[in-house]
Amino acid sequence: MITFHDIEDAYRIVKPVVHKTPLLGSRTLDERVGNEVLFKAENLQRIGAFKIRGAYYKIASLSEEERKRGIVAHSSGNHAQGVALAAKLLGTKAVVVMPKSSPPNKVAGTQGYGAEVVFCEDSSDDRERVAKELQERHGYVPVPPFDDDKIIAGQGTATVEIAQDIRELDYLFVPVGGGGLIAGNAVAAKHLFPNIKVIGVETEPANDCQQSFRKKEIVRINPPNTIADGMRTQAVGKRNFEIILQYVDDMITVTDDQVIEMMRFFLERMKIVVEPTGAVAPAAIYHNVLGLSGKKLCAIISGGNVDPALLKKIL
Amino acid sequence: MITFHDIEDAYRIVKPVVHKTPLLGSRTLDERVGNEVLFKAENLQRIGAFKIRGAYYKIASLSEEERKRGIVAHSSGNHAQGVALAAKLLGTKAVVVMPKSSPPNKVAGTQGYGAEVVFCEDSSDDRERVAKELQERHGYVPVPPFDDDKIIAGQGTATVEIAQDIRELDYLFVPVGGGGLIAGNAVAAKHLFPNIKVIGVETEPANDCQQSFRKKEIVRINPPNTIADGMRTQAVGKRNFEIILQYVDDMITVTDDQVIEMMRFFLERMKIVVEPTGAVAPAAIYHNVLGLSGKKLCAIISGGNVDPALLKKIL
Repeated sequence: MITFHDIEDAYRIVKPVVHKTPLLGSRTLDERVGNEVLFKAENLQRIGAFKIRGAYYKIASLSEEERKRGIVAHSSGNHAQGVALAAKLLGTKAVVVMPKSSPPNKVAGTQGYGAEVVFCEDSSDDRERVAKELQERHGYVPVPPFDDDKIIAGQGTATVEIAQDIRELDYLFVPVGGGGLIAGNAVAAKHLFPNIKVIGVETEPANDCQQSFRKKEIVRINPPNTIADGMRTQAVGKRNFEIILQYVDDMITVTDDQVIEMMRFFLERMKIVVEPTGAVAPAAIYHNVLGLSGKKLCAIISGGNVDPALLKKIL
Repeated sequence: MITFHDIEDAYRIVKPVVHKTPLLGSRTLDERVGNEVLFKAENLQRIGAFKIRGAYYKIASLSEEERKRGIVAHSSGNHAQGVALAAKLLGTKAVVVMPKSSPPNKVAGTQGYGAEVVFCEDSSDDRERVAKELQERHGYVPVPPFDDDKIIAGQGTATVEIAQDIRELDYLFVPVGGGGLIAGNAVAAKHLFPNIKVIGVETEPANDCQQSFRKKEIVRINPPNTIADGMRTQAVGKRNFEIILQYVDDMITVTDDQVIEMMRFFLERMKIVVEPTGAVAPAAIYHNVLGLSGKKLCAIISGGNVDPALLKKIL
């Protein structure tokens, strides 16, 4: 299991490459919910999502020989773009397996950074199968989307930046897809803010991690039908789940409608574009799912790569 | 004419009230234009625009007796919201005269902060006439939108924050409506970055300040038909113009289409919502109107209060 020391190592490597994203607040929201709220705006990160942190650290940690072979990844969207850009920056060939239903803007972004995209069926199983085949046939090195110590450590660097900007924090809300983001940031948060509570958030249809958390073993669900496309993973990673059991205080859910309302508030009041998955953790604050008051809360906005057609619909 | 000392005074007063807005960059844009570019994101400011800076400083500078009488302002949009919020924070009654064609979201915002809105015809002349009447009839204290030393000093605090975040800057691009923003920020910029060039930017139909700058006297134009609703002022203020002649290096223009292209880039690539006027100075960089290369450039995004209907059209 990784420690805060691993996240510090990761931060030294990714710092020159990632944007230090701002913490954004809204007094209107503070008044509405009766807490002091800040959002870590990873939608303003390079590639429009936090995924560049883990992907860059992972590929930078490969040996020269491995980087010469090229890498293969599978992802419904943002990890694909993170891997594509990281590989480009590090001079490595990247092949990315994406489900056919991936948002077109994420596919275009991945190709735009110079990666080769191979399409597969929509299940997590099929993605893994196709990526495995490519790996075996061409000798590509796999860059997994979440269940990997380097990836976890890289994602955790977001909270290192949070702690540079604020000294006290009572709660950190993090969206949970495969669990890499929450694993890394839970480890960092518990080290940097000793009394903090770390809360994982999913949409109701994609609550596999909440089920797993309660059962204390990984539960695998069918591909969930949710607006949060980053949560269409069917189960969290093993390494992530170990960390979640040890460091995460609770797993909660919001509805797709609550996510949409949050996205609209971001657009109309806070002037930022947030993708559905990115609005999941903030929605738990906006709708005060935990019934908190007078606390200092932070939620990670995981990304902003929303399809213009969906954005239009939301407006 | 104000000096940097006045802006320092203003900063002490507004600092606890305004957001310190981030400087946002995009490597994609840097590569496109061959310069290092940062945007001062005043669209992420309270009320969604820089106007809270000047309005708050102005109203905070009134005597207790004046604040008891209440204040009156006229504005096509963001100054209205700035005045409304500032008055609310300072416990003062606010009446705001707005042209009938003001974007509905800006009217709603102004009323939402508790100000009374009185509608007028669309010309600057009529706004001023109606505000004057209210002032005489009720004894309200006028809070002008731009031609006022306190307002100018307040707006200039944006560049105080820029200088906290970066040490070197070759060019600052600022949008010009009534000229308050550029006046304050030109004074601050020339003090904080001694070799900087300050460039004012208008849309072509609203180029009254460019004409004035070339003629060295204030030129008044008919209400211009431009997408940048914050530039529908017909002439710059006298105090602002004095400063512009002394501190601004050039006045340039962009087309409405260039502004729309910039707005789309902000939405799709940088994940921020920017109103047309807010995209004017950035558009001069995006389209490299001055043909610069290898320079450090900053443009002020003046606001993000765009009507959802227009946003939809742009998407």
